[in-house]
Amino acid sequence: MNSEIAKKNNVTWFNGYVTRKDREQVHGHKGAVIWFTGLSASGKSTIAHLVEKELHKKGCSTYVLDGDNVRHGLCSDLSFRPEDRAENVRRIGEMVKLFVDAGIIVLTAFISPYLKDRRKVRSLFQYGQFLEIHIDCPVEECAKRDKKGIYEKAKAGIIKNFTGISSPYEPPYSPELVIQSYKEDAKAAAARVIELIEEYKILNRTLEAKK
Amino acid sequence: MNSEIAKKNNVTWFNGYVTRKDREQVHGHKGAVIWFTGLSASGKSTIAHLVEKELHKKGCSTYVLDGDNVRHGLCSDLSFRPEDRAENVRRIGEMVKLFVDAGIIVLTAFISPYLKDRRKVRSLFQYGQFLEIHIDCPVEECAKRDKKGIYEKAKAGIIKNFTGISSPYEPPYSPELVIQSYKEDAKAAAARVIELIEEYKILNRTLEAKK
Repeated sequence: MNSEIAKKNNVTWFNGYVTRKDREQVHGHKGAVIWFTGLSASGKSTIAHLVEKELHKKGCSTYVLDGDNVRHGLCSDLSFRPEDRAENVRRIGEMVKLFVDAGIIVLTAFISPYLKDRRKVRSLFQYGQFLEIHIDCPVEECAKRDKKGIYEKAKAGIIKNFTGISSPYEPPYSPELVIQSYKEDAKAAAARVIELIEEYKILNRTLEAKK
Repeated sequence: MNSEIAKKNNVTWFNGYVTRKDREQVHGHKGAVIWFTGLSASGKSTIAHLVEKELHKKGCSTYVLDGDNVRHGLCSDLSFRPEDRAENVRRIGEMVKLFVDAGIIVLTAFISPYLKDRRKVRSLFQYGQFLEIHIDCPVEECAKRDKKGIYEKAKAGIIKNFTGISSPYEPPYSPELVIQSYKEDAKAAAARVIELIEEYKILNRTLEAKK
């Protein structure tokens, strides 16, 4: 919403003794967010977890945020209506900002269907700290992959506001990377994400020295 | 305020390849939260930042959460009314759970005035992962220390729902540590917090080997 309440109540910034740079030094790499967006069952979580595995092998400090660990906790009070989806993405964005400030490489795997909401999250970060990856997969293919039968339920109207069926998905205009997960193997896709992370110099020299 | 919505929409847990233990291995210590509670200007943030400084020197992966970085972002939509304070603490608790799962030592410095709200947060963690520290300081002493004049404004009724003046503070019955910040120097207090962290074996042997 806004920080008027905070201002009125004299909540001000104090940065402490340990800076973000100090924390990045300990981790041997920069803090950043790799933001996956796409339909349900498009492969976001699978790819995010494969990328985490690779980064972990390199000694990085990582974390995956997805519906699994956010919808049961931080956002358990929110539904899938448009205004609640916006609030869901807003809270995730603000939380991720703090993870990135803590020097972590965060991988997020949320449908995050609206352009406007994702843009707001992007605006919280400096250039090169927020890498948006569109997992592009036709809805028919996602429905085929879906093992939980949620697309069936959505088509039958049992699940309401389902992205791609009864709720819109707005693809990004210029994401840092597009993965056509119906054409590309998850492992190959994960390798391309690692290349992107390297291209943006998130894994800097300090890490190389640590290995 | 429950995960019924998540259940209904088929949001299920997937733990990925990299576990919390793996992440703790990278950091060389366990994830945990040191939860400071007490009145405004009692010294919570000062002590939390001093503890972070010491932990950072030891090579730990740390982060301080306080009103400064949460009230402007994740909880910028919340006021200081009792129900919003409860929601504020709930969101912080859920976020901290994820930070701890990421293997970070989190230091939180929030007034968090209600017993019930803090107990709910405690229930999210296993024994020894949540250490509650009561920064005990009489309200008159806090008002004296306050350089921003917020106690004056609260007494004049300009700031509403101010803890200790127009809103209650419920001290913990059995916190892991009590610091009487009106008697004890902040540096000495921080040293006692480090001792507590060591006592709970949060900084385990892996870290010692890394040094």
